Amino acid sequence: MIERNIFIKIAYDGSSYHGWQIQPNCNTIQETIQNSFLKITGEKIKLNASGRTDAGVHAKEQVATFKTSCSIPNNKIKDALNGDLPEDISIIASYGVGDLFHARYNAIGKTYFYRVYYGRELNPFLRNYSWHYPYKFSKKILDKSKDRLLGVHNFSAFQASGSSVIDTVREIYDIKIIDNEAEKFLDIYITGNGFLYNMVRIIVGTLFEIASGRMDDNIINKAFETCNRKILGKTAPAKGLYLKKVYYNKNVLNKFIKNLDIAVKNG
Amino acid sequence: MIERNIFIKIAYDGSSYHGWQIQPNCNTIQETIQNSFLKITGEKIKLNASGRTDAGVHAKEQVATFKTSCSIPNNKIKDALNGDLPEDISIIASYGVGDLFHARYNAIGKTYFYRVYYGRELNPFLRNYSWHYPYKFSKKILDKSKDRLLGVHNFSAFQASGSSVIDTVREIYDIKIIDNEAEKFLDIYITGNGFLYNMVRIIVGTLFEIASGRMDDNIINKAFETCNRKILGKTAPAKGLYLKKVYYNKNVLNKFIKNLDIAVKNG
Repeated sequence: MIERNIFIKIAYDGSSYHGWQIQPNCNTIQETIQNSFLKITGEKIKLNASGRTDAGVHAKEQVATFKTSCSIPNNKIKDALNGDLPEDISIIASYGVGDLFHARYNAIGKTYFYRVYYGRELNPFLRNYSWHYPYKFSKKILDKSKDRLLGVHNFSAFQASGSSVIDTVREIYDIKIIDNEAEKFLDIYITGNGFLYNMVRIIVGTLFEIASGRMDDNIINKAFETCNRKILGKTAPAKGLYLKKVYYNKNVLNKFIKNLDIAVKNG
Repeated sequence: MIERNIFIKIAYDGSSYHGWQIQPNCNTIQETIQNSFLKITGEKIKLNASGRTDAGVHAKEQVATFKTSCSIPNNKIKDALNGDLPEDISIIASYGVGDLFHARYNAIGKTYFYRVYYGRELNPFLRNYSWHYPYKFSKKILDKSKDRLLGVHNFSAFQASGSSVIDTVREIYDIKIIDNEAEKFLDIYITGNGFLYNMVRIIVGTLFEIASGRMDDNIINKAFETCNRKILGKTAPAKGLYLKKVYYNKNVLNKFIKNLDIAVKNG
């Protein structure tokens, strides 16, 4: 078969992995999928994801592309991989896309959500899937202060110190909080055109400092002005973070499309 | 300290255990808790649960009692145990109750729920916590046929074959279905005065045969009349089942109470 560019959507429970990106002597999601593909087809591939996720971070819908000349039809690559992958990684779609399409460079936005379990008692079911925050906080303040993050800002203070990214301006389109009172957890959904390293986790850590009364919500604006990581809250734990969706512009995508099996819809 | 009778509520993720009940060479929830208690206090205890749960079955709120002479205050036993227990087992309450109170004999009812994930794609997050049913079924028929189970019936056909229970009459008070369309799973809540071995799982297996059009819903009434296990659906997998709550009659409980730390509320 001729070489094609394959687009896959992947869901994973990140609990048992050292993140997405291949590292020596570590169990990673990228390597696990590449190894499954090698086992099935005998072919070595290199996955390009929409972005890395850290150890313990989950994905409802990560996106990656790779080049292959395998004989499996594009839309059957999904089932072939699922037949070999461990149960905590699942391919939820596979299509062919144009050769120039790249999961990271062509992404125009992403949605993450962050789950906070606020029940007082330990919850065995959420131990790997949330940040346990059994302390007092105001949902009203949480809801109000989050809006200060909307729009175009220099998020330099909201990245892990030591990052080398030069352009730290990002736009946050939307933040919404979905509260599951019965189960005592809330999900903070954040959609933006791009995210710096640890940005969502620093946002969540800071919002809970504010909602617990230990910081004033104008700290967010001060952080935009001063670019000082230190005035913000702690980085919330990785295990509460989920990559929910990666967006591609239909028009941008179509420009690159050569042998698209199924129309990749926007949103 | 004098010997007291301790009432504990326990949540557990049953994925890694061979069920509640101690068995040789098996990792069980009962043994794990008893071993933690031994480690902390040097005292051997025997837990009496409201009922066993099978390998892979979960509990949001199992109840057990045990006798102890340890020096830890009753309501602090919770924290002492949680300090040693693995994260997939959590004690969510501990009280002192009257000596004659027994978690099983004094239970007047239970609620279980069963989670069915009906999305087409594999879901890494629900792999140990639901039955994956990616086939066609009618929610309307599911909802309608469940009501045939309500009331007092001889549930003999709804127990694992080979069971030796003599009285197989039980009352089901309520069945409700909560559908999470966004996440594509539904929870079937079943409340009754008692449940036979595998009863909930056979009910769920049968309801899905009916909702998928492979059985008529009058099979339920035929099963009540004939007591024939074989005419019903398969036993749904253990991993979708959760013990949600155990009920005690406040009056019954109060009759036995000697040194109750916190009022045990009914429901």
